[in-house]
Amino acid sequence: MGQDVKKNINDIAQKLAYNYKEQGLFEIGIGEKLPKRKEIIEIVREIKRLMFPGYFGTENTAYVSLESFAGNTLATIYEKMFKQVKIAFSYKAENKNMKEIEEKTEQTVLTFIDRLPYIQQMILKDVDAEYDGDPAANSREEIIFSYPGLFAIYVYRIAHELYLLNVPFIPRIMSEYAHGNTGIDINPGATIGEYFFIDHGTGIVIGETTIIGDHVKLYQGVTLGALSTSKGQGLSGVKRHPTIEDNVVIYANTTILGGETVVGKNSIVAGNSFVTKSIPANTKVTIAVPELQYKDRK
Amino acid sequence: MGQDVKKNINDIAQKLAYNYKEQGLFEIGIGEKLPKRKEIIEIVREIKRLMFPGYFGTENTAYVSLESFAGNTLATIYEKMFKQVKIAFSYKAENKNMKEIEEKTEQTVLTFIDRLPYIQQMILKDVDAEYDGDPAANSREEIIFSYPGLFAIYVYRIAHELYLLNVPFIPRIMSEYAHGNTGIDINPGATIGEYFFIDHGTGIVIGETTIIGDHVKLYQGVTLGALSTSKGQGLSGVKRHPTIEDNVVIYANTTILGGETVVGKNSIVAGNSFVTKSIPANTKVTIAVPELQYKDRK
Amino acid sequence: MGQDVKKNINDIAQKLAYNYKEQGLFEIGIGEKLPKRKEIIEIVREIKRLMFPGYFGTENTAYVSLESFAGNTLATIYEKMFKQVKIAFSYKAENKNMKEIEEKTEQTVLTFIDRLPYIQQMILKDVDAEYDGDPAANSREEIIFSYPGLFAIYVYRIAHELYLLNVPFIPRIMSEYAHGNTGIDINPGATIGEYFFIDHGTGIVIGETTIIGDHVKLYQGVTLGALSTSKGQGLSGVKRHPTIEDNVVIYANTTILGGETVVGKNSIVAGNSFVTKSIPANTKVTIAVPELQYKDRK
Amino acid sequence: MGQDVKKNINDIAQKLAYNYKEQGLFEIGIGEKLPKRKEIIEIVREIKRLMFPGYFGTENTAYVSLESFAGNTLATIYEKMFKQVKIAFSYKAENKNMKEIEEKTEQTVLTFIDRLPYIQQMILKDVDAEYDGDPAANSREEIIFSYPGLFAIYVYRIAHELYLLNVPFIPRIMSEYAHGNTGIDINPGATIGEYFFIDHGTGIVIGETTIIGDHVKLYQGVTLGALSTSKGQGLSGVKRHPTIEDNVVIYANTTILGGETVVGKNSIVAGNSFVTKSIPANTKVTIAVPELQYKDRK
Amino acid sequence: MGQDVKKNINDIAQKLAYNYKEQGLFEIGIGEKLPKRKEIIEIVREIKRLMFPGYFGTENTAYVSLESFAGNTLATIYEKMFKQVKIAFSYKAENKNMKEIEEKTEQTVLTFIDRLPYIQQMILKDVDAEYDGDPAANSREEIIFSYPGLFAIYVYRIAHELYLLNVPFIPRIMSEYAHGNTGIDINPGATIGEYFFIDHGTGIVIGETTIIGDHVKLYQGVTLGALSTSKGQGLSGVKRHPTIEDNVVIYANTTILGGETVVGKNSIVAGNSFVTKSIPANTKVTIAVPELQYKDRK
Amino acid sequence: MGQDVKKNINDIAQKLAYNYKEQGLFEIGIGEKLPKRKEIIEIVREIKRLMFPGYFGTENTAYVSLESFAGNTLATIYEKMFKQVKIAFSYKAENKNMKEIEEKTEQTVLTFIDRLPYIQQMILKDVDAEYDGDPAANSREEIIFSYPGLFAIYVYRIAHELYLLNVPFIPRIMSEYAHGNTGIDINPGATIGEYFFIDHGTGIVIGETTIIGDHVKLYQGVTLGALSTSKGQGLSGVKRHPTIEDNVVIYANTTILGGETVVGKNSIVAGNSFVTKSIPANTKVTIAVPELQYKDRK
Repeated sequence: MGQDVKKNINDIAQKLAYNYKEQGLFEIGIGEKLPKRKEIIEIVREIKRLMFPGYFGTENTAYVSLESFAGNTLATIYEKMFKQVKIAFSYKAENKNMKEIEEKTEQTVLTFIDRLPYIQQMILKDVDAEYDGDPAANSREEIIFSYPGLFAIYVYRIAHELYLLNVPFIPRIMSEYAHGNTGIDINPGATIGEYFFIDHGTGIVIGETTIIGDHVKLYQGVTLGALSTSKGQGLSGVKRHPTIEDNVVIYANTTILGGETVVGKNSIVAGNSFVTKSIPANTKVTIAVPELQYKDRK
Repeated sequence: MGQDVKKNINDIAQKLAYNYKEQGLFEIGIGEKLPKRKEIIEIVREIKRLMFPGYFGTENTAYVSLESFAGNTLATIYEKMFKQVKIAFSYKAENKNMKEIEEKTEQTVLTFIDRLPYIQQMILKDVDAEYDGDPAANSREEIIFSYPGLFAIYVYRIAHELYLLNVPFIPRIMSEYAHGNTGIDINPGATIGEYFFIDHGTGIVIGETTIIGDHVKLYQGVTLGALSTSKGQGLSGVKRHPTIEDNVVIYANTTILGGETVVGKNSIVAGNSFVTKSIPANTKVTIAVPELQYKDRK
Repeated sequence: MGQDVKKNINDIAQKLAYNYKEQGLFEIGIGEKLPKRKEIIEIVREIKRLMFPGYFGTENTAYVSLESFAGNTLATIYEKMFKQVKIAFSYKAENKNMKEIEEKTEQTVLTFIDRLPYIQQMILKDVDAEYDGDPAANSREEIIFSYPGLFAIYVYRIAHELYLLNVPFIPRIMSEYAHGNTGIDINPGATIGEYFFIDHGTGIVIGETTIIGDHVKLYQGVTLGALSTSKGQGLSGVKRHPTIEDNVVIYANTTILGGETVVGKNSIVAGNSFVTKSIPANTKVTIAVPELQYKDRK
Repeated sequence: MGQDVKKNINDIAQKLAYNYKEQGLFEIGIGEKLPKRKEIIEIVREIKRLMFPGYFGTENTAYVSLESFAGNTLATIYEKMFKQVKIAFSYKAENKNMKEIEEKTEQTVLTFIDRLPYIQQMILKDVDAEYDGDPAANSREEIIFSYPGLFAIYVYRIAHELYLLNVPFIPRIMSEYAHGNTGIDINPGATIGEYFFIDHGTGIVIGETTIIGDHVKLYQGVTLGALSTSKGQGLSGVKRHPTIEDNVVIYANTTILGGETVVGKNSIVAGNSFVTKSIPANTKVTIAVPELQYKDRK
Repeated sequence: MGQDVKKNINDIAQKLAYNYKEQGLFEIGIGEKLPKRKEIIEIVREIKRLMFPGYFGTENTAYVSLESFAGNTLATIYEKMFKQVKIAFSYKAENKNMKEIEEKTEQTVLTFIDRLPYIQQMILKDVDAEYDGDPAANSREEIIFSYPGLFAIYVYRIAHELYLLNVPFIPRIMSEYAHGNTGIDINPGATIGEYFFIDHGTGIVIGETTIIGDHVKLYQGVTLGALSTSKGQGLSGVKRHPTIEDNVVIYANTTILGGETVVGKNSIVAGNSFVTKSIPANTKVTIAVPELQYKDRK
Repeated sequence: MGQDVKKNINDIAQKLAYNYKEQGLFEIGIGEKLPKRKEIIEIVREIKRLMFPGYFGTENTAYVSLESFAGNTLATIYEKMFKQVKIAFSYKAENKNMKEIEEKTEQTVLTFIDRLPYIQQMILKDVDAEYDGDPAANSREEIIFSYPGLFAIYVYRIAHELYLLNVPFIPRIMSEYAHGNTGIDINPGATIGEYFFIDHGTGIVIGETTIIGDHVKLYQGVTLGALSTSKGQGLSGVKRHPTIEDNVVIYANTTILGGETVVGKNSIVAGNSFVTKSIPANTKVTIAVPELQYKDRK
């Protein structure tokens, strides 16, 4: 019976090869590569270790100067990053001048790592926001190594820097890694201020052109989305997601849609709301809870 | 103190062993096995590499003929699949005739891999749907290697074929793997047409007897579910999930319930809707947004 | 160009080291450690193998007495657990008397493993609840090795025991591991009865002070949460999440908030409800479905 | 340039495929397999852990009853062994009746593991011999986990049992594993008594038909070989290696050849000797040290 | 006490850094690399799998055409080889023109893989020689997957091709890998004919300028070496190791030295001989066995 | 048939457990451990990376200051070493005062790492000796990453420091690791001067009380051993291996025995010699080559 299997496999292989050739998609040139997801996840983890030395159980910070630790870890990050960013810049590049691409890559990665001390400070503020906002939090340590909200924000802050530097592919791979692990989907293009707080988080969606101020709190299932995407690629670059000003709280499962929709500062939006128009500052918005009907259970 | 620990452990082990014996569940016969989740995930990844050679960074397609690449990868998939499907068919099989089980397994796996070129074409259409529908998508490549929606659809299309071939366990292991990674829960029994589009995706539930046409778009948090499952196993096999016709768009967090509920072709259903009755074709359904109440924030 | 990179990296390392020192957060003493997430996940898996021998494909139960199997696996669990619990008790302990900490650790871990036969029985009841409640379930085996709902309940039952024993960090690491894999967020502090059933599960949130009776069923997207957390850490310890009595069913995407909110026994709450007041026993609660508006699709 | 590479690779692949077909050697039938070296090495290590629990740093023997530990480890060994022995018996078997092969395999592996307690006692005697004979040995523990001589003897004692049971391939894979790690080449067919002592060991060769008594000591570079192997396969089964009786010491780099050569009991053979004739019992054999010639170094 | 450790480590690090700078050896330029031993060992294994498909337990040759198998494996080998050879050619290259180095690398690796079908034929002849010469050999399969002699010859044949192509570093890494595993040290520069036979092998040394004919047999401990190496690097390139003509047999522990020493065809040299002068063809050379002196053992 | 297997395994387990209990050897107390071979090998590799940064392909030295690299690597080595040395000092320690053992461990490991810069300088001199002495050596790099002689010397130099510090077990584990990989067996107790040269190396044995001066060269198969070890442990601590003075060359397969045997400085000893008496300084010692007898080959 084995011979039949062999023949079948050969026949199917022909069909797949035919598919490959039919599809322009598969015209990856000789030596062309796409960034490796696994490497990018490793970079995300390395930066986490750099920012919170000792919190993930594998760093050796008891016996080494902090400068040495930081220097070594940064060098590793630089090297890994350089490789992946170079691949990303090279892929389908019109001008294949390797020297130019390498210079652009070096400049980009240096600019990126130069931002890391600042990003670290931002994330420490996010830790404070989580701690202050969650009565179930027992310590900052717990937040740092187990809260999905903080993890999603951390990855966003990293990915956002790469988005601003126009690095292809990598920001999205990072944000989808966080999305897969937390259920929180923050597009790397979004703009988010200081002391950002997310609780539980599963189901949160924050669109590419969203703008969020400082001290904003979001709960699980909140969507900050577009009104309609029926125009598809035609909407690329247009502001189609809302603006949330400072000190706003948005409770669970609320949906806020539209590029011109602004939630003014200090406002609170109750859970399960559906918002498509702007909300003034200093307002508490509740929904008329849909009337419940009580019957005896059969 | 160690001796106490040893004694305690022995006592507890006795109790656990007692539990094992009390529970018919643990009467796994000598040599009986259940399919290995890890192997099945590996199969899912191998097929992904087969369908999109070069996109996941580990394939070597620059120097080898596409036919050879496809043939080798298929052979690996066949071998791994054969092992797991055989285990699945053998488990608690009434007739333990190994030769019959092996022949059934060979037939099943050959039928399955013979479908792969067709499934590949289907998925390429799904990629097109994602690209056309998402203004934030920068390229088809990005969709293929980072979009959770596409990943969930890909796994569904694979698992569905095995579901149709009545392979036990494996389709569900596959779909729960995708569910765990994306938050998108598509039962392998569902029937889904071409050019299927999912955005963000977290929280989507598509029940076992759902039927979905071509060119349908779903957003995060959409449930296509049953009205009530209080009859439990008594409902097994009954159509209890809705039918969605061609070209329908269903926005975020909408719930559509019931086996007789049909959303007619070309219709659009707004986000946060709760639908338990059929919607005619060519209709745009919006909900009366629950009135919001504005108060000054205390 | 390399020399510039080296200099840049050194400069940035100085800034990061400055950040470390500025932040009290990083004053981890010499030799101080935090529990290792990876080890804790391994413990979760080991206990799973102990409870369901043969179901995850790597155990060898065909040739060994069940007592020996249980004894060995328990010994491994005891050893791994001892290490992590000791780290957790030692971290920032005011009294660094190692002997006392080790005795407390031994006592705690013994108490914990002594509960495992009981927890196993509880989880087998949860398996029954899943099987009886889901028409799509083909077998108990399928539930045990692929249902996210069961996995989240299993992890909760383990983590809850450690929560009751006042072990720091570890219960939360466990529950966030389950949350990341299933989208189901059950705080280890919650109290949950027998025959608990979760379907699909993504987006479920069960707060720290929630009380749930026996034979309760929850569907995806259900939140059992607090009314407001604006008082943050000030609310620590206060009952702020609802009570769900025996035999209650809560359908998808319903939100129930508040520490004084009680859903009485035998009641059913329809999907997409928003509940902030108690519901009497034996009641079927439906929402007035928000009116849908039909227009022709443009 | 890549296209040329692709073409070259295809051409060379054709030639290799031609070689495969030309060589009967490659006529491995469908589904035929050879034992896996990696698995066999793992078995060697497992048995070592079984025999010396706690000495290789990964066993957990502090908290579990020794019976449970032994039972579990044996079960693992049985399962791995069964798989490899079945492959070995199946390969090119004239009678492919699977049931018969499995019964023969079960019988063989049971007989083998039944010998393990006896082999363990033998090896503990070898440890004593090493400890008593080597002034540089600090403890029995050191011998058990670091002496190559003991390791080679241990592997020989295991492999010899399988040789006696006529298991193909596996004994030789085991002995070559020890050979590669220690430079000591003991053919599994050799017969070796109690309290066997090897020091340093590199370069020792003990041929297939060698017979060695109790309390024998060998040093590095000793060959117990055949006089001539020019008849090749024609000598298969003929006794062509020497017999060494009880209490013999053979110092470094000595060569003893021939199937009829006997070194009588209690004799001592000096280093660098070349022996092709029998030596009576109770004899001390030294060689006339080749005269050394002294010149001033230029 | 920890602070002292930290200070000590910093002080020692300064001294090591001083050592690095003092030693020209450590002036590895930015981005300079040395070939990776691990990758080269992987290449050695891949080629073994290519040459003996199915013999090492991990290949899948039952279901795929041999051409596809060979093509894929070759492509992998080409890619890995290209990387390491490029590194080897780049290291301290005077002319750092990357394009030139890559062209040279491509040409070199193509020439190398083009030789593989021929090398495969050579090694199959070596297998025949091992089988015919060793009465303890049970099958060709056993020789292929467990005989150290064959492994050392196989690695030599590969490494020799790279030596002829003037690839730096890699041939020696390969031959030392074999040396470490077998105790057989064949310099990749040696010239060795067909049907080469090595038995046991430990301690064999074959120098760089040795020439060996067809059908030659060597036993353990044979040295084919130089008379004196006191001139060190001054002797580089000079023929300083012996020539062994066709059909010669050299028994164990014999030493043959000198670049002008020739062992004529069909000759046999007994074990433990020390040869510094040429031996005519068709001669059987034995040594006057050093007289043994017998005394009663005290 | 499976039930029989189970019963058999249980019976054999009883016998093994009986053996464990009978043998005092197995009275390893609760929590007692032996050093882990795997960890010690890792330490050997880490120190190699510390001493030759960039030579083993995995270090990142291009972008980081050498002080940072050295500091980090040292910290890792310190931590791993501390753990294993503490285990070694604790095992069967009469005084189980943990604080005292930890202080002794800290002191020992600090003393050890403080020697590393000096050892590094020693090894660089050994590299020079290898390069100058071997005409086949193409570069110092090749020696550093592929020469077994250098590797054995490197491991010896490390292990010797620990031997001098009276650390149990670990020096021997290290030296046997090198022995297994190179066939060169240097007891960590030996005393060896600068510029030590080993060529090929397989079969070299250097005993515990050997003393070797500067600029000494040894070839494969050289034994520096004891005259007789029949007194076994009674000889522990006695000088029983020879002394080799500065600038001595000893060619292949020569054996030099006895604690009072001295090879005077500048002497050369020919290959295959057997030396049991002292050799004066400035002497060239050759052996009367045993006469060869020539016959026509039959």
